[in-house]
Amino acid sequence: MNDIDAPTDHSDLRVMSTDECTGRLATAGIGRVAFVRSGEVVVLPVHHVVHGLDVYFRTSGGSKIEAAADHSQVGFEVDDYDRALLTGWSVSLTGAASLVDEDDLIRELADSDPTPWMVGDPNHSVWVRIRPDQISGRELLPR
Amino acid sequence: MNDIDAPTDHSDLRVMSTDECTGRLATAGIGRVAFVRSGEVVVLPVHHVVHGLDVYFRTSGGSKIEAAADHSQVGFEVDDYDRALLTGWSVSLTGAASLVDEDDLIRELADSDPTPWMVGDPNHSVWVRIRPDQISGRELLPR
Repeated sequence: MNDIDAPTDHSDLRVMSTDECTGRLATAGIGRVAFVRSGEVVVLPVHHVVHGLDVYFRTSGGSKIEAAADHSQVGFEVDDYDRALLTGWSVSLTGAASLVDEDDLIRELADSDPTPWMVGDPNHSVWVRIRPDQISGRELLPR
Repeated sequence: MNDIDAPTDHSDLRVMSTDECTGRLATAGIGRVAFVRSGEVVVLPVHHVVHGLDVYFRTSGGSKIEAAADHSQVGFEVDDYDRALLTGWSVSLTGAASLVDEDDLIRELADSDPTPWMVGDPNHSVWVRIRPDQISGRELLPR
């Protein structure tokens, strides 16, 4: 049963507020970035951090993500579902991606992410920034 | 430590075999579909089933996914990560999406998915097929 005041969409999912979306984005840890590479839409998981209003993730220097994501429009998604309870939530955003080249920011990001993972050698990685232009979230409540 | 025989990629992830990829895809239950809509790359979670070599998911009739995914190149991803252990795996594919209009197949798909979720009213939903043209998977082993 939905809360009586909670807005729902055409699939009966509760629509999250923007604050709730950004909160869940910040604590999710794992997200999926989607981008176009050679005319194909590719989705890959990344470990991300949120800094200010932007989403950042590391990728190996010279990776396909690095090449494709720089100055591109990308999608990004985080979620958490319980298959037993058939409940869960997701937050999805679109934004512009760019490589981070500010040394101060790179140090801050590294400090905020003391345990790099999902990237080979952190010393040979680059940070990608996603600046969101749209964000939305949905929650599937218990029926 | 990686198995000595396991191939790894440039990020030190174990490369999965195609059989392993399709096996994990079939049991994952939740995946993320990525597609281009009005020039933006969008990622959304779906509950999927695998039938034959194809991936299928339901979406509400008239949804944005339905409009965007029909006869499009899309991306699809499943994963499972353990943030405490810093381990996990992902499978990513690209393929052509199309709406399912074969009545027999729609019945088979509905039978194979007795508990629809992540879609409002299953009686007003459509099935989308993704026919994979490339599939790959990576596993992050304990360090």
